[in-house]
Amino acid sequence: MTVDDDERLARLALARVAEPGSHDVHLALQQAPAAEVWASVKAGAPLGQLGQRALDGIAGRVDGYVPERDLERLGDLGGRVICPGDDEWPDGLDWGLGVMQGDVKGMAPPWVLLVRGRHDLRKATATSVAIVGARAATAYGTHVAGELAFALAEAGTAVVSGAAYGIDGAAHRGALTARAAPTIAVLACGLDIAYPRGHDRLLAQVAESGLIVSEVPPGCAPTRVRFLVRNRVVAALTRGTVVVEAALRSGSLSTANRALDLGRKVLAVPGPVTSAQSAGCHEWIRTQRAVLVTDAAEVLEVVGAAGEHLLLPKRGAAHPRDALDETVRRVLDAVPVRTAVGVARIARTAGVPALVVQQVLPSLLVAGLVEQRDGAWRLTTLGAAAPAQAMSVAP
Amino acid sequence: MTVDDDERLARLALARVAEPGSHDVHLALQQAPAAEVWASVKAGAPLGQLGQRALDGIAGRVDGYVPERDLERLGDLGGRVICPGDDEWPDGLDWGLGVMQGDVKGMAPPWVLLVRGRHDLRKATATSVAIVGARAATAYGTHVAGELAFALAEAGTAVVSGAAYGIDGAAHRGALTARAAPTIAVLACGLDIAYPRGHDRLLAQVAESGLIVSEVPPGCAPTRVRFLVRNRVVAALTRGTVVVEAALRSGSLSTANRALDLGRKVLAVPGPVTSAQSAGCHEWIRTQRAVLVTDAAEVLEVVGAAGEHLLLPKRGAAHPRDALDETVRRVLDAVPVRTAVGVARIARTAGVPALVVQQVLPSLLVAGLVEQRDGAWRLTTLGAAAPAQAMSVAP
Repeated sequence: MTVDDDERLARLALARVAEPGSHDVHLALQQAPAAEVWASVKAGAPLGQLGQRALDGIAGRVDGYVPERDLERLGDLGGRVICPGDDEWPDGLDWGLGVMQGDVKGMAPPWVLLVRGRHDLRKATATSVAIVGARAATAYGTHVAGELAFALAEAGTAVVSGAAYGIDGAAHRGALTARAAPTIAVLACGLDIAYPRGHDRLLAQVAESGLIVSEVPPGCAPTRVRFLVRNRVVAALTRGTVVVEAALRSGSLSTANRALDLGRKVLAVPGPVTSAQSAGCHEWIRTQRAVLVTDAAEVLEVVGAAGEHLLLPKRGAAHPRDALDETVRRVLDAVPVRTAVGVARIARTAGVPALVVQQVLPSLLVAGLVEQRDGAWRLTTLGAAAPAQAMSVAP
Repeated sequence: MTVDDDERLARLALARVAEPGSHDVHLALQQAPAAEVWASVKAGAPLGQLGQRALDGIAGRVDGYVPERDLERLGDLGGRVICPGDDEWPDGLDWGLGVMQGDVKGMAPPWVLLVRGRHDLRKATATSVAIVGARAATAYGTHVAGELAFALAEAGTAVVSGAAYGIDGAAHRGALTARAAPTIAVLACGLDIAYPRGHDRLLAQVAESGLIVSEVPPGCAPTRVRFLVRNRVVAALTRGTVVVEAALRSGSLSTANRALDLGRKVLAVPGPVTSAQSAGCHEWIRTQRAVLVTDAAEVLEVVGAAGEHLLLPKRGAAHPRDALDETVRRVLDAVPVRTAVGVARIARTAGVPALVVQQVLPSLLVAGLVEQRDGAWRLTTLGAAAPAQAMSVAP
């Protein structure tokens, strides 16, 4: 299926004059071709859901606007416009109105996306995870975000984020370092605007080896509403959103809320309870809105399809003691560290018959846990190495 | 109800010659008075569940043992013996065999406890929480354990722990500092043994203003098995066990396992994912065996009786922006930070009719979010203070 040029241009124009995620425009586009909706908007003539009030609201933006110029500017940037029906249009962007509980109303699905980069957005997001978090991140948070993004990218997972300072930037950088899967920056402004300015080089690198995505034409500024509306795209493009650091009212929790709205997983990285930048993560884990994760394998276990990435329970290094049965262990516990003692003393300390002690000690000798000299026994270094070691005090 | 002296002495004697938590002794005590069980043990004569094999195992400890001496030694230490039926015997120590899934068999309930300190153990543990964790704790872990114990004690909750180095010690110290509720140290050895030795002063302080509890008579050494068996008492005396730091195979997770066996809550404090000493806590939270907690209020919410200590959802400080409706917010977002602009420009940026902008601005002025000069508007410091501030770039 192909989308014709008029349709594409009209959707681009609607993204400039109305805000992305507008319910009114979304509903109008369900009822009529985009070119027709755009013609009505230009003429100031109501059409279906697009009533006079809505049209009045955006009339100031329509006057003198020539959408072909945006298309040209986009072409100069090496960008392209993709629409529902294009092969590159990602899955998962077709949620129903009412699904999202956001505190602004721009929560309808996108009707157009502007993209820079040589990857196919649909393929790149088939396996993808969002990593988001505080702009005022700590050194700990940026370290963890970078490591996590690197490991996920190494595993072939696209890392999606918002290009902000702090966690977002660390995630993009970590993913770029891996050079294994594209990283995707979703902006709240036009593709020509480097926001934040300090990330202009980072954004150039993402455009070069990954993808940059926006819902608004070049020149559009990142307003507060657009950040919130952008967050729903970050959540929707991924199978799960990992919050690395977030204070209790961090904006990154808005992305997590949109992920929940969409039935995507929310994952959170813990940190010191003494860090305000981890308080939002802890609150989400504590109230079971987020799953605690500490590394990429755990992330993939949560977001992977059923059966993929099932983790074995984590265990520390095994100690030979663990393989011993209880009687043997009691005998071992009764063998002193320093001064070697006889079987009778070991039997009394262990509360095990002397005959049993005599049967057990040779196997402990073979295992290298005890040593014998002149009929007296004591622990070897290995035998003494276990925690909660028996003291040599007799009961 | 009172327990007679013979019964008390016999239970003490059984605690020395058999290991605490012995299933055999527990079952024998269900069938016969303790004095009778002790007489059988002394005579080496099987009685009910106490068969010849079990008696052979402990025969070496019975020879020459005079329990009255233990009682005398205990009296010298200022200690006392309490038994089921005593007013001071704590609730919650009467679980059935088979309840505990421990990897050693000493998991029957205690049949005697030895106690030092001037508080009533039953009353002290009516509201109590265990705080346990790694001996090789980090500075972060000991800090958090101390703060948590202090705040819980301040709230009138007894803090129970095992007097070990690291988290245990920090918990006792934090609770002692509060001087509001007793802290309780449960030992794996006799009440006369300071273990670890470096905690002899701490143990003296706990005995002075809190309680020290043991299941074995004076002189008994803390063997590996006794540590594991002791942990079940720590779990059983409390409504919940908080693990502050624990590596993946930390011994403190044995206490947490016993708490789960007994239907008590397990709580865990998160930490940096880069710290091996928090890996056990994270694994327990991740697999939902433990509830994440970050402070005393959250602990009390989990372990408190229904309706007590219900926490309000945590929120960061509110910003005046949050009270604004969407149109007003869009107008506010369109007001620049530096160069003041007119209503028409604000209307165009916001995508809101100029008439509406004119109605909205005076209320923002009253709220102190915007300021006006010569018909041009810009944000005040307060208005500009919100995150994700609108940029002054026109769309």
